[in-house]
Amino acid sequence: MTNEPETLDPGDWDAHRAVAHRMVDDAVDYIRDIRSRPVWRDMPPTVRVRLREGVPRDGQKLDEIYRQIETDLMPYPMGNIHPRFWMWYMGASNFTGALGDFLAAILGSNLGGGDHAAAEIDKQVVGWLKEMVGYPTSASGTLVSGGSMANLIGLTVARNAMSGIDLRELGLAALTAPMRFYGSDQIHSCHQVAVETMGLGNRALRRVRSDAACRMDLSALRDAIAEDRAAGIQPACVIATAGTVNTGAIDDLDSIADLCAAEGLWMHVDGCIGALLAIAPKGRALVHGLDRADSIALDPHKWLHAPFEVGCALVRDAGAHLGTFSTTPEYLESASRGISSGTWLHDFGLQTSRGFRALKVWMALKEHGLAKFGRLIDQDLFHARYLSELITNTSGLTLCFPTAINIVCFRYDPGGLSEEALMQLNTEIMVQMQEAGIAAVSDTTVQGRHCLRAAINNHRTIPSDLDLVVAEVVRRGRALNAEAIAD
Amino acid sequence: MTNEPETLDPGDWDAHRAVAHRMVDDAVDYIRDIRSRPVWRDMPPTVRVRLREGVPRDGQKLDEIYRQIETDLMPYPMGNIHPRFWMWYMGASNFTGALGDFLAAILGSNLGGGDHAAAEIDKQVVGWLKEMVGYPTSASGTLVSGGSMANLIGLTVARNAMSGIDLRELGLAALTAPMRFYGSDQIHSCHQVAVETMGLGNRALRRVRSDAACRMDLSALRDAIAEDRAAGIQPACVIATAGTVNTGAIDDLDSIADLCAAEGLWMHVDGCIGALLAIAPKGRALVHGLDRADSIALDPHKWLHAPFEVGCALVRDAGAHLGTFSTTPEYLESASRGISSGTWLHDFGLQTSRGFRALKVWMALKEHGLAKFGRLIDQDLFHARYLSELITNTSGLTLCFPTAINIVCFRYDPGGLSEEALMQLNTEIMVQMQEAGIAAVSDTTVQGRHCLRAAINNHRTIPSDLDLVVAEVVRRGRALNAEAIAD
Ligand SMILES: Cc1ncc(COP(=O)(O)O)c(C=O)c1O
Ligand SMILES: Cc1ncc(COP(=O)(O)O)c(C=O)c1O
Repeated sequence: MTNEPETLDPGDWDAHRAVAHRMVDDAVDYIRDIRSRPVWRDMPPTVRVRLREGVPRDGQKLDEIYRQIETDLMPYPMGNIHPRFWMWYMGASNFTGALGDFLAAILGSNLGGGDHAAAEIDKQVVGWLKEMVGYPTSASGTLVSGGSMANLIGLTVARNAMSGIDLRELGLAALTAPMRFYGSDQIHSCHQVAVETMGLGNRALRRVRSDAACRMDLSALRDAIAEDRAAGIQPACVIATAGTVNTGAIDDLDSIADLCAAEGLWMHVDGCIGALLAIAPKGRALVHGLDRADSIALDPHKWLHAPFEVGCALVRDAGAHLGTFSTTPEYLESASRGISSGTWLHDFGLQTSRGFRALKVWMALKEHGLAKFGRLIDQDLFHARYLSELITNTSGLTLCFPTAINIVCFRYDPGGLSEEALMQLNTEIMVQMQEAGIAAVSDTTVQGRHCLRAAINNHRTIPSDLDLVVAEVVRRGRALNAEAIAD
Repeated sequence: MTNEPETLDPGDWDAHRAVAHRMVDDAVDYIRDIRSRPVWRDMPPTVRVRLREGVPRDGQKLDEIYRQIETDLMPYPMGNIHPRFWMWYMGASNFTGALGDFLAAILGSNLGGGDHAAAEIDKQVVGWLKEMVGYPTSASGTLVSGGSMANLIGLTVARNAMSGIDLRELGLAALTAPMRFYGSDQIHSCHQVAVETMGLGNRALRRVRSDAACRMDLSALRDAIAEDRAAGIQPACVIATAGTVNTGAIDDLDSIADLCAAEGLWMHVDGCIGALLAIAPKGRALVHGLDRADSIALDPHKWLHAPFEVGCALVRDAGAHLGTFSTTPEYLESASRGISSGTWLHDFGLQTSRGFRALKVWMALKEHGLAKFGRLIDQDLFHARYLSELITNTSGLTLCFPTAINIVCFRYDPGGLSEEALMQLNTEIMVQMQEAGIAAVSDTTVQGRHCLRAAINNHRTIPSDLDLVVAEVVRRGRALNAEAIAD
């Protein structure tokens, strides 16, 4: 090799420094002025074409790349950092968290393990999350890519711990009776993906009927368990949902904990939406019994508004957790001194290399303190009640389900329309509001009824945003309905 | 609620802006001057104590938090961005990638799907990676948290596609014959975790003997398959490794592809280390046959030096890929217009919410171009050959295995010592070099022999770094050995 050594480091650090400073200034403006921009807007075809080009052979100045980012990327966001985005269920990110991701990448450390400060912070944040849900310090946990992964971790530990055999070595083929997991018919789709991936199959996840408030019907659960036992199926785990994705319903955690104790079942709580209610002064009572779970999935990228991604799996019995995932191959043996003398953090899950997702959570919790995060959760609950009352008091609007937490299901219903026509009308209202950049709500079908859905997980929302969306839904609903009648 | 609305946005944007600008300046200095700092150093107890405090109830100024980051975090990195870090197997990050993570978090978008620019860039980067390994555009892929997850995705698709039944619905219990996966005895530990998680059990992963060059012995593979068929076990998938973690050995991909075609087996390539050799002008020939795989796991956070985390799973048959993971619950139905009119990117894996990991890869590929990344891979291969020759030509040092790519296995061996004593001596040399902050190499045991291991995946390494580590190993080895003799 006769060439000069090459590196990814810039030849001219000052040029990079200058672009980075511009990015910071623009980023501050971008978030500060978010309210003045549309929630969402369609990309022009020219942008789409540029974002479909093949891999670049040759390089380009960072400055030029940033100019493309300014024209092709930043104006066309998903919308979830906007004060009037209440679609699906996600956090609204935060500026300090973005600085956390920047510093994590500058430091560049791998959180697979080892003895370094980032590993301490990773463990510290897991400890904080344990504290927040009332888990003992003896419990274990791991930060993962999100709630789906956190659920998969919890369910895998449950499967192995409840199998009664060396499932890691022998696999499911060695079971004498098939295992059954239970969740309500409102359970998130990630549980289906989890049991399928785990080789149990979708049929191993029995959906238990939900009641009128969309909570798991416990007598139906009891019947299902008894029926399964009678049929030679081994009940293993109840997945309670603390905050369903459709309506925010919270299963009766205390009663499920009692039932699991009586029946000898693992209790997993999908708390991706609701587990963090545990830190809210007013909301706390809604998740009483959460700390009795054997495992909990929660999602700092939702109610802590950490930038994507960060979820967390917590397991009460650290031995069961490690017993499910730890491997110590020869090239990863711990030393007693030096870089590899720390804990192997990858022993708690499915990743080997792990990013430093802890830092953004750590910085935001330090900046605002737990108390304020608790108040912000209560504020979302307040906003959901505010919107629900507004809907109830507005003629033409119907609240489809009682609002349990921060998810409001409603529809425009002028009367006299079929379910099919109502669905078409409401979908059109929803899409028009998105296209106009005014507000983003989603739609769903719960227990057979189509409705619009506002998931108010947004630290930028203020009450007048909710006034606006109600006015817009009614205005557009009337206009569309009048058009339809005129046709 | 009588309180003023609260938000995570700063009251005083200018204070945050100022801290962010300081972070940028410090970050530039941090990476620019990395060579002048130790690779690693031990944390003082005072730092450890502060990083074990409980969750903060009240907030603190960002400025103060950053001061703690300056004292407690940045001085104590894992070390992998330093030019003389060659421990385990990871990339060395890059400044532009860190800006990518910052902008991704500012934008805040969820890459679970939808119609927005970030989703286009996610798909574009997957397309680029397909191009890079020679896959057809009809193949599918998804960016994931890393190589372990990419392997899990590939193996799950293989399991389902090869099962011959509706495995998603029925689970493994419905199989008439147990399935078998094959990999060499050099396979990465994540495959064990994968088959365990998938419910197949560790015994479903048959380790095939490796040859003297640590490559899978293909006659042993043939025998194993025949033996299994005779025993009523269903051979399903061969996991070829393109770059083993221990020594960098590359299994004979073309022959394995032939064998899989003849036997009707799925061919998965764990290319976390080596798949990207496909873009290196000189290295390319080493992975001939890679594009014949049914699925490939690769790792942009290794040879593309993206900040953690980003891995990628590619599957030749997009239908098999989607058929394994896609779910379309009622609250995630695609609309024909508006925010949810795009592809559901979460249908290709285990996450629902997904971060915008694509951006850091996109920016760095645009900045440097594919050709330069290819040359940097060749440069690492050159450095590994350079180090190997240095070792061969230095008395007291032994090259333990022929260097296949960029991993060099060697030890200090003054002669006359037992294997046990050699292991102790070399471990001490390794730890001392870490403690002194000079260089980070790891150790491993391959085919029964303990050795030091330098994985040169580092765009900052220059040949004199390798001269230095050789001199240090010999100097410390001599001193330690002399001490031991004097004792
Ligand atoms: C109840 C529930 N569980 C699990 C998930 C999945 O979480 P994630 O998107 O972080 O994977 C969600 C996502 O909205 C959810 O609402
Ligand atoms: C051969 C091989 N496969 C898989 C992995 C796992 O990749 P990751 O650490 O990105 O999960 C590694 C990590 O070094 C590896 O070397």
